[in-house]
Amino acid sequence: MSAEIICVGTELLLGDILNSNAQFLAQQLAQLGIPHYYQSVVGDNPARIQQTVAIASERSQILIFTGGLGPTPDDLTIATLADFFGVPLAERPEIIEDITRKYAQRGREMTANNRKQALLPVGAEILTNSVGSAPGIIWQPRPNLTILTFPGVPTEMKQMWQEVAVPYLKSQGWGQQLIHSRTLRFWGITESALAEKVAPFLDRQNPTVAPYANNGEVKLRVSARAASEAEATALIAPVEHQLKQIAGADCYGADEDTLASVVGRALLASKATLAVAESCTGGGLGQMLTVTPGSSVYFWGGVISYDNSVKVELLNVHPDDLAQQGAVSAIVAEQMAAGVRDRLGTTWGLSITGIAGPDGGSDSKPVGLVYIGLAHTNGYVTSYEHRFGELRSRNWIRHLSACTALDHLRRQLILSTSRATG
Amino acid sequence: MSAEIICVGTELLLGDILNSNAQFLAQQLAQLGIPHYYQSVVGDNPARIQQTVAIASERSQILIFTGGLGPTPDDLTIATLADFFGVPLAERPEIIEDITRKYAQRGREMTANNRKQALLPVGAEILTNSVGSAPGIIWQPRPNLTILTFPGVPTEMKQMWQEVAVPYLKSQGWGQQLIHSRTLRFWGITESALAEKVAPFLDRQNPTVAPYANNGEVKLRVSARAASEAEATALIAPVEHQLKQIAGADCYGADEDTLASVVGRALLASKATLAVAESCTGGGLGQMLTVTPGSSVYFWGGVISYDNSVKVELLNVHPDDLAQQGAVSAIVAEQMAAGVRDRLGTTWGLSITGIAGPDGGSDSKPVGLVYIGLAHTNGYVTSYEHRFGELRSRNWIRHLSACTALDHLRRQLILSTSRATG
Repeated sequence: MSAEIICVGTELLLGDILNSNAQFLAQQLAQLGIPHYYQSVVGDNPARIQQTVAIASERSQILIFTGGLGPTPDDLTIATLADFFGVPLAERPEIIEDITRKYAQRGREMTANNRKQALLPVGAEILTNSVGSAPGIIWQPRPNLTILTFPGVPTEMKQMWQEVAVPYLKSQGWGQQLIHSRTLRFWGITESALAEKVAPFLDRQNPTVAPYANNGEVKLRVSARAASEAEATALIAPVEHQLKQIAGADCYGADEDTLASVVGRALLASKATLAVAESCTGGGLGQMLTVTPGSSVYFWGGVISYDNSVKVELLNVHPDDLAQQGAVSAIVAEQMAAGVRDRLGTTWGLSITGIAGPDGGSDSKPVGLVYIGLAHTNGYVTSYEHRFGELRSRNWIRHLSACTALDHLRRQLILSTSRATG
Repeated sequence: MSAEIICVGTELLLGDILNSNAQFLAQQLAQLGIPHYYQSVVGDNPARIQQTVAIASERSQILIFTGGLGPTPDDLTIATLADFFGVPLAERPEIIEDITRKYAQRGREMTANNRKQALLPVGAEILTNSVGSAPGIIWQPRPNLTILTFPGVPTEMKQMWQEVAVPYLKSQGWGQQLIHSRTLRFWGITESALAEKVAPFLDRQNPTVAPYANNGEVKLRVSARAASEAEATALIAPVEHQLKQIAGADCYGADEDTLASVVGRALLASKATLAVAESCTGGGLGQMLTVTPGSSVYFWGGVISYDNSVKVELLNVHPDDLAQQGAVSAIVAEQMAAGVRDRLGTTWGLSITGIAGPDGGSDSKPVGLVYIGLAHTNGYVTSYEHRFGELRSRNWIRHLSACTALDHLRRQLILSTSRATG
């Protein structure tokens, strides 16, 4: 038994939109443990949709469609499916009522176009759309073949999937063996170095452990197959524990954690506050820190010292050091961190100064050279030099700089906590 | 004649990665005017790859593969294609040399695994990969069928597409009728209001005009089909001119322009400088401004005044106004803008204070209420109130706030330029 995803829409063939629906459904099928071997994209064309259905219905038992459920003439999915299986369409009064009610709430009247959305194949169940006007269907046009259709709008598709499709699939005995995963997140170690450290784990089964790398961070996904989430979690927990032991401080969190949210929790736990001084990141570090709701408790703000005059005036960087060492130097990074900490009166000050490029590099100070400064209210000041490379893009260097700054603070917070409790 | 995209990789079926390669190739085919009716995704499984090739080779004349070219055992694309068409593989010494050289540059030695990447079907041309180790092929296994293979890594795939595949396709007489598009960008007008204003244009042919909306901005894509880019540009220019006349200041730019880059150009043109004061955006406005290389000429920096104490200490916001009107108020926004302008000595000061949520809202000041302040060195200070709505997410409200702040400054810069020249 396997499922197949078929996304209908000429806009996908033109490259106007990214097919995020296919990724969502693929993840969902994997989590439910429903095998899935093929995905297709086809335009709003009845003959080609029929050809796709002919192929898919021979090799898969669950066909999941997205797109082509709207009210306009190029929305053809339902009518084409009915035609392919030789089943007539019939108007469903409950859909007319539902659309009329939803439109009335927005002060609009249902149009003649919308009537089309109430035409479903005889024998198909309505897959209710609680958000938008386009309902889907759950339909067994012949034994051993189930068709589910969803609108192309991701929010509607996802809600209908969770609310209706998942309970339906489970009621049919599919997805009883679910796959539950936990993603451990790492910073400051390469994928190959981590893979070497945890090599024995990469061959194991249930849970499996697989390394990934993207956006500059490395992840280990620990996936267990079990009858329930609780059972899967119990399989994952000891492996997660061992992996964390091996990785030590390189593992910064799991699942929805970000470097900024983990730093935030550690600051909260130690009742500490933070200010930032940013040069080449131009506000990106503050932006990351304030993604977390409630961050104002520990993040007080900072100074974007893009121009050198701001480093001198607001951060008390010494003009002599700026002149002799340059704005991108360890001493300026340290003075920026100490300066913003002093100015805002926080526990910690964190600074970034670097050359993001594409211009401004030299032999001694190439593009990608970044200094991160860290200052504590007890007088501790330090800095870190990084060379993110001349081949990386400006925005990539800026992103790595902000993440790495957070990571340095994170490691210092771990150290100071272990000192305090040790 | 039509092309078909086939993406190979179990990671796509697991939903681990988003299929951005398919979107890129779809856009490229549309630009080249090469019809494209189907896309498929299939896992790293020889039998299923063969089944996919069997179907695609019957209905399309150009098959474009991504993925499965790497050195590991699950990279099967080339061997499976050779097997399907009954053609033997042969080792290409020039590939062994190329990989050896690339590895030596990074101080590594070629592994036995890499030898596999030099095995190509007899009769296939090498599709050179100037970045990574995995070459592709350009192959006509039978008359009227051309196969192009690319690695799954997007940067390598894109470079090979541009450098080798596009010239090859053109040399074969495909893509002679290209589609060239220009995207006009708008801020401060809804998609439906814009569509109404330009309604007569939406029905026209060559160039066609189509509205889009995403990330809070509205776009009009003007697309012309012609034999050359110059010819297409000539078709687009008069329509673009008319659309801009109709839209006025709501049209902020085109193609790669961003609100920040357009503001930057206007500041440069008027030899003006800018400082920002950010509360709820936490640095996001500065981050946007500094995406543009060379922005330090006009953007000097700013203050992230997340905590109220920073508003008072660094921006001279009056504690009485903070207490009486609250941090999210017109007067505080104006004082922040004037304060940061005074402190940094720039021509303009731009500020944002608002409630990004999800908590912190009240009946009188709901989540989504944002004030933007703007101050000029001549003493001009103003503010704008926005209600971005309680249903929007924290990050969405923050994004809209930063963009809207840039848009207000942009409109003021247009006004002051027209005053100066008028």
